[in-house]
Amino acid sequence: MAEPKETVHGGDIYRNPSVTDYSVNSNPLGVPEAVRKSVQESADRIMYYPDVRCDRLRESISDFERIEKEKILCGNGAAELFFAVVMAVRPKKALVTAPAFSEYERALGTVGAEVQYYRLKEEQDFRIQEDILEQITEDTDMIFLCNPNNPTGQTTEKELLIRVMNRCNKCGTILVLDECFIEFLEEPERYECRGYLTQYPNVVIIKAFTKIFCMPGVRLGYALCENAALRKRMRAMLQPWNVSVTAQEAGVAALVDCEAYLKRTREYIKKEKFWMTERMRKLGLNVWGSEANYIFFKGKAGLYEKALKSGLLIRDCSNYEGLTEGHYRIAIRSEEENERLITWLEKL
Amino acid sequence: MAEPKETVHGGDIYRNPSVTDYSVNSNPLGVPEAVRKSVQESADRIMYYPDVRCDRLRESISDFERIEKEKILCGNGAAELFFAVVMAVRPKKALVTAPAFSEYERALGTVGAEVQYYRLKEEQDFRIQEDILEQITEDTDMIFLCNPNNPTGQTTEKELLIRVMNRCNKCGTILVLDECFIEFLEEPERYECRGYLTQYPNVVIIKAFTKIFCMPGVRLGYALCENAALRKRMRAMLQPWNVSVTAQEAGVAALVDCEAYLKRTREYIKKEKFWMTERMRKLGLNVWGSEANYIFFKGKAGLYEKALKSGLLIRDCSNYEGLTEGHYRIAIRSEEENERLITWLEKL
Repeated sequence: MAEPKETVHGGDIYRNPSVTDYSVNSNPLGVPEAVRKSVQESADRIMYYPDVRCDRLRESISDFERIEKEKILCGNGAAELFFAVVMAVRPKKALVTAPAFSEYERALGTVGAEVQYYRLKEEQDFRIQEDILEQITEDTDMIFLCNPNNPTGQTTEKELLIRVMNRCNKCGTILVLDECFIEFLEEPERYECRGYLTQYPNVVIIKAFTKIFCMPGVRLGYALCENAALRKRMRAMLQPWNVSVTAQEAGVAALVDCEAYLKRTREYIKKEKFWMTERMRKLGLNVWGSEANYIFFKGKAGLYEKALKSGLLIRDCSNYEGLTEGHYRIAIRSEEENERLITWLEKL
Repeated sequence: MAEPKETVHGGDIYRNPSVTDYSVNSNPLGVPEAVRKSVQESADRIMYYPDVRCDRLRESISDFERIEKEKILCGNGAAELFFAVVMAVRPKKALVTAPAFSEYERALGTVGAEVQYYRLKEEQDFRIQEDILEQITEDTDMIFLCNPNNPTGQTTEKELLIRVMNRCNKCGTILVLDECFIEFLEEPERYECRGYLTQYPNVVIIKAFTKIFCMPGVRLGYALCENAALRKRMRAMLQPWNVSVTAQEAGVAALVDCEAYLKRTREYIKKEKFWMTERMRKLGLNVWGSEANYIFFKGKAGLYEKALKSGLLIRDCSNYEGLTEGHYRIAIRSEEENERLITWLEKL
């Protein structure tokens, strides 16, 4: 079996103390007060085992996603669910985009899957093209797509995704659709695919509370899937108490009247991204679409190290498959912090 | 691949509200105040990803266990680590005691392992005997032992465990030693095996904060293992952020000056267990050793249902492999609650 790769992720404040962290792309509005409070209050219930069925939490997600409760499976973060779906399906061959979130490949490594790449091209702005359909064959047991993609921030139009779903249906391919950043888009409904789950039982959508509610420390994600047998196999890969009491309560709290928070988030991201992108382009930096809450760009080699010396932690993307030195990702943070980073870039 | 069994565990207060729960065997002294406070305070750091290396937590465990930090792997509860070790080793054949904690078998189900049973005999007080050595052969890829055993509460002497470790060494068998209840014993040092890890690199000891610090809602466990390759394989089966910020901080808090709490726990358990066992024996109930914080006994069929009608949730052990109707487990709780249960039994 292949040894899964060691990977380096953003957000490692433990080895980078006293820096401003632009490497991790969580919601810049911060933890909703209701979530913070629910974590505090959960302290009074940690003497109980978590609900193995996540009943209340799944009811909340069901309302939020307008999808039947039984089609929801909760996880200790989305990452756990990537591992669970791989372990449940045990693909021999799998297709991932290059670049993509590296945990897809680490998860695939646990079952020794052969990983094939659909290479996103710089000259095509790292957008998925129709030729992805040719790379999905009857040998393809699984494919991971992320919409909008991380780290490139590019979206894939629903029309193309439907063609991918059809192709996967024909080929017996499980499509894992990572929508962890979809709520940051200006128009999520233009991209989200949960409405197609009934028609495409080979699709597993995975979402997280992590990014959009700025709570990565709590660990909470969920999968949406029509296929009961697959859901059952995924559940079987997980211990019964995988979602803590704290996470279940925080998730319920996050979804209560969350629309105002989400709206503010989208407006803020749009506004900040606009001026940051403008200023970065004026500097001659190559900035791609970045429709999510982060900006993907090309700069000079060595920018990561320089930034770190100035107390700014950015995401060096050179370790992503399909990217090279000079590719970076920065998260949108507070107005002041964004200004600080852009000014720093300008003074270079 | 075999379908893992659906299992029913104790502690399901979500489907059994407003009962007193004797089915779950956590520390009756309750959550240490420092742990409760640390969960509350962790609310201010949930916007950060957890430390993927659990550095501070592993330092605390290292001090507590007097074992090198690098030999420690943390998990989202001990249960996650049972799954991780099985997925890392992928045993074809495995040996578990009957009865045993059902998650061993569920974990083994994820890789389709053939499960063989070492049957604990009622006439031998459900104690592991020397004949277990004969059941460990070169075909045995993995064996799970729990000391003290759950649900029987019986310990296995170190002398026999050393013979098991030797036998496993000879046969290339991985021994997973579940010590989740060992801190409840009057003399843990008489039974604990971490001192043998260097000599036996095929042993993985798994412990949890769950039971002894009464924090099952937080999810925190750890594995101790000498074998670096095996630790690495186990880590590869897990997402990077498997232990939440809250759990890491709660774990550190739990271990600060914990000796007084552990001492009080042991004294309380001893005292309560003594009188409860006496009174139960007077009722003609067959009570076994129960050296941990729970009492395993034989009563009349239907006791579970009767108790539930009176608002008392006890653990019906009839669904354990190797046990039958009439086997029950009760946890030791507060003085008043213990009195209430015993009085109820007497009035039957």
